[in-house]
Amino acid sequence: MREAQAAAPRGVLTTRMVGKRRRPAVSSGVAQLALGFGAILLAGTLILTTPLASEEGHWVNVKDALFTAVSAICVTGLTVVDTPSHWSALGEVVILVLIQVGGLGYMVGTTVVMWALGRQIGIRDRNMLRLYYGAPSLHETFSFARSVALFTFIAEGAGAIVLWGAFRAEGVPPNRAAWWGLFHSVSAFNNAGFSLTGRDMMPYHGNPVILGTLIVLIFLGGIGFLPVVNLMRRRSFARLPLDNKLIYLTSAALLALGMLFTAAVEWRNDGTLGGLPPVERPLVALFQSTSARTAGFSAIDMSQLHDQTKFATIGLMFIGAAAGSTGGGLKVGAFSLLFAVMVATIRGNDEVAAFRKRVPQAVIQQATTLALYHVALLFAFGLALTFTVDRPFIDVLFEAQSAISTVGLSTAGTVNFGADGHLILILAMLAGRFSPVMLVLYMTRPHRKVPYHHPVDSVRLS
Amino acid sequence: MREAQAAAPRGVLTTRMVGKRRRPAVSSGVAQLALGFGAILLAGTLILTTPLASEEGHWVNVKDALFTAVSAICVTGLTVVDTPSHWSALGEVVILVLIQVGGLGYMVGTTVVMWALGRQIGIRDRNMLRLYYGAPSLHETFSFARSVALFTFIAEGAGAIVLWGAFRAEGVPPNRAAWWGLFHSVSAFNNAGFSLTGRDMMPYHGNPVILGTLIVLIFLGGIGFLPVVNLMRRRSFARLPLDNKLIYLTSAALLALGMLFTAAVEWRNDGTLGGLPPVERPLVALFQSTSARTAGFSAIDMSQLHDQTKFATIGLMFIGAAAGSTGGGLKVGAFSLLFAVMVATIRGNDEVAAFRKRVPQAVIQQATTLALYHVALLFAFGLALTFTVDRPFIDVLFEAQSAISTVGLSTAGTVNFGADGHLILILAMLAGRFSPVMLVLYMTRPHRKVPYHHPVDSVRLS
Ligand SMILES: [K+]
Ligand SMILES: [K+]
Repeated sequence: MREAQAAAPRGVLTTRMVGKRRRPAVSSGVAQLALGFGAILLAGTLILTTPLASEEGHWVNVKDALFTAVSAICVTGLTVVDTPSHWSALGEVVILVLIQVGGLGYMVGTTVVMWALGRQIGIRDRNMLRLYYGAPSLHETFSFARSVALFTFIAEGAGAIVLWGAFRAEGVPPNRAAWWGLFHSVSAFNNAGFSLTGRDMMPYHGNPVILGTLIVLIFLGGIGFLPVVNLMRRRSFARLPLDNKLIYLTSAALLALGMLFTAAVEWRNDGTLGGLPPVERPLVALFQSTSARTAGFSAIDMSQLHDQTKFATIGLMFIGAAAGSTGGGLKVGAFSLLFAVMVATIRGNDEVAAFRKRVPQAVIQQATTLALYHVALLFAFGLALTFTVDRPFIDVLFEAQSAISTVGLSTAGTVNFGADGHLILILAMLAGRFSPVMLVLYMTRPHRKVPYHHPVDSVRLS
Repeated sequence: MREAQAAAPRGVLTTRMVGKRRRPAVSSGVAQLALGFGAILLAGTLILTTPLASEEGHWVNVKDALFTAVSAICVTGLTVVDTPSHWSALGEVVILVLIQVGGLGYMVGTTVVMWALGRQIGIRDRNMLRLYYGAPSLHETFSFARSVALFTFIAEGAGAIVLWGAFRAEGVPPNRAAWWGLFHSVSAFNNAGFSLTGRDMMPYHGNPVILGTLIVLIFLGGIGFLPVVNLMRRRSFARLPLDNKLIYLTSAALLALGMLFTAAVEWRNDGTLGGLPPVERPLVALFQSTSARTAGFSAIDMSQLHDQTKFATIGLMFIGAAAGSTGGGLKVGAFSLLFAVMVATIRGNDEVAAFRKRVPQAVIQQATTLALYHVALLFAFGLALTFTVDRPFIDVLFEAQSAISTVGLSTAGTVNFGADGHLILILAMLAGRFSPVMLVLYMTRPHRKVPYHHPVDSVRLS
């Protein structure tokens, strides 16, 4: 961690020494990024309010336009109006652009900012020295952004073509099938969860090509660029950096657990899996498990889920996708660190290790803090939302977690939360998407070591 | 922490060296304690099944008798039959004895076991050397147990006398007032929450003497012997050990927050606070806040609470009382350590400190692990319970947390959970009461240091 900060500063996005303190020039970079996001969000909102963006050609109230734009740029997918029937072709294009900017911008933005600030981005690996030792030059920054964009467009392009064919085969008219293919591919890869079918993926519960393609896109977008490119280069799990190993392993475990749990609980629920032919149920259960962290598509009626599945889904949403991906939530890396702490502590190990790599104590504490922060977010927004709607508590908690983790699933119907609820959800989406990054940036800021130690005292645990 | 283990072994409850390993002779002590608890639980259950224990003089089914005995010995207070109308005088005496054994036994047992094993009990303090350096002799063990018993009986005796007078003043007949005074004093001090009035403390919402006495008893029992005796000897908060400071500060903060939240949300709820004269509401709100961690009395109808208050109460129940007290839950010490981790990490401090004392990393990790374990308990028992009853999810979660933290409050009515639910609740009470202690014992067992360090790698958090 310290070595990264020792590299010579160069390029625009570097840190420089001011007196005895490092004052990162990138803080202005962060501000520029935030301004850029804000400007795009504002532009999107303005276009969405105009009659041009509406199918019926009338003005849309600012709250609904803002909600939709925030939901798109935060790649959430919660909606207060039905996407295909309410928005015109222009409106849908605006939503798609916001999703792409929000997803790709976040993937590149968080990585470059961490990297530029010389902080750990979880890659400590001799073969990719330039990606983590020292701040990147402008050239390196653009090169990295180009690689991520290439990765994104290849995945989205391939997905769009497959989905186009699949929608055609389902009898969707040619032009619409092409647009739907592109839109859902981008929406899936960016874990955005916006859909144009009018009934999400429910009409396609029996189409393994559509569900399978979406699963792959969601998975790729949800683990992000570096783990994918690392695995392609190394062709070996064992040689991946710890961060990437944990992402793959924890993602796979959560997918499997979520699928098994959903299948077990919903198998005989006629409103959800039980209403489908048994042969379709496993894939739909996997689709739901994949989508819960944090894509937000659904091939079944979420409002009909049993409470147990809603509760477990809240857990999956809480954990979320991988850091550096398009998705939201606490992130699988931080979650698996907490798991590693538990295992190490119960085993009586003084150091927290995984795959024979020791994780620095500071990172453990940061992960713990981040988890507690996400609990606090859920408590705060969950409680606030309860005052805006008269629905069962589990549905309110579900909606809050869905917004915070930018998932976009809803069991109560987002429209039912009313204007106050919508404003709270807008705040929840923005806070869930951006405040944890700010917290991590703040926690990992360069700081002087405490020059003395306090005397030790302990606290009784039992 | 290490010094404690370096002391020369002596007495029966000591550790001794076997080869290169310490093999604690106390593991047999723990087993004896467990056997003793089991035997008393069994005896209590048997007596409660007989006609002698029943008001109507018939046999009681074993499940209900076991539930009541477990609820009493775990000082929970959940009931499947109405205590005063269902149990005879003998039955009530059995319940009271089980409460006293469960509460006092737990306070003394956990402390002596930790101490005997030479583990940290959170007291690192020159003036009380014998309480934490080295294992206690048999004489010291009995002397400590005697002090705790004295503390207990003085508090309970004083409480019983005040409550006796207060019940007399409320028009309760003399003999009954005396029995009620004793029973509720013991029930309150041991954070058990069993009540003989038939309607909990609802009839006495307007009696500040009864509520005030119960609040003091619950508070004393819920912080335990050492913090009280330390404060009496030092007469100074500043000179208390860190553990005691955190207990006082966090308890006070939680009492105040719980009171303000309950008052704010329930002030206009006619089913709860709103139905009482405004002048009574603050004290009742404080009573509810005190009782939620983890006494379990209530002066209002819990089923009428707003969802927000139920949710916040689940949070208070989760945190619970102090380690080494009669109460349950995660414990305020572990909770405040997590808070200290957050503050330190956000401030960018490498060491977690509070009141100018540094907390060892091992203890931090143990507290984190304990908190995660409690989350796992809530998920497991909460999910299991949902299959046994058709009630809103918040009420099921509430019941699960109430059992795990041995609180005894219920918003859905425990009787409605049916036989399957009652068996799950029995397991939840036992697991919530005893498994965290076992986990702490296991985590803090003597173990060899890892002789080598793994290379460092990091995990990306954002
Ligand atoms: K989403
Ligand atoms: K209790």
